Amino acid sequence: MPGRSADDDSCFAVIFTSRLRAPDPGYGDMAEKMLALASEQPGFLGFESARGDGDSELGISISYWRDRDSILAWRGHVEHLVAQELGRERWYAYYRLRVAQVERDYEWSCDGPPINSDHVPG
Amino acid sequence: MPGRSADDDSCFAVIFTSRLRAPDPGYGDMAEKMLALASEQPGFLGFESARGDGDSELGISISYWRDRDSILAWRGHVEHLVAQELGRERWYAYYRLRVAQVERDYEWSCDGPPINSDHVPG
Repeated sequence: MPGRSADDDSCFAVIFTSRLRAPDPGYGDMAEKMLALASEQPGFLGFESARGDGDSELGISISYWRDRDSILAWRGHVEHLVAQELGRERWYAYYRLRVAQVERDYEWSCDGPPINSDHVPG
Repeated sequence: MPGRSADDDSCFAVIFTSRLRAPDPGYGDMAEKMLALASEQPGFLGFESARGDGDSELGISISYWRDRDSILAWRGHVEHLVAQELGRERWYAYYRLRVAQVERDYEWSCDGPPINSDHVPG
């Protein structure tokens, strides 16, 4: 693809934002189980998650993947399909899922010399 | 760009993950001010944010933009530059910033009929 070199050295982010209906310990257990399972899948690169403490607070979970095929394979994993169905039946009031290709990546820490992992494809 | 139709109908996500050093009300005030300013910029499409209650909890903020130029313009906005500098001096222990092009977007709600805004470019 002319003008793009991103497919080789970039990665993909699955951005999952959600609101829960009500507190349910079963949700946390399932989320932990799914993270453990996802991290064993081919192409899994990492995971970040944050949710405020209020019941209706927005939660954001982002998983990072090597390529689109890895994302599709995880999406169709049989145990993950069951979890997705339970999520719609029991836990989520709302969710939105975006798949995005990471083009730039820049890291900074106050502890030491600047970490600059920025890369501009092309 | 051959093989790509995403630039017209997709958008870009700026994924900002961070850890704070210590609680500081100045941080929240500045974050609010910057969100208000960002939302007035050309190409701004939306914003999502989540942070757990612990001091060292990961925070995730995602802003959505029409195109790369809008992101660059906001990155270089003079008031935003001052805020970025203050962030490094006072508030952040760590941050990571990724820019990603959204390729798929799927929405679901338990309230009504399925909302499916999925679009697959190309």
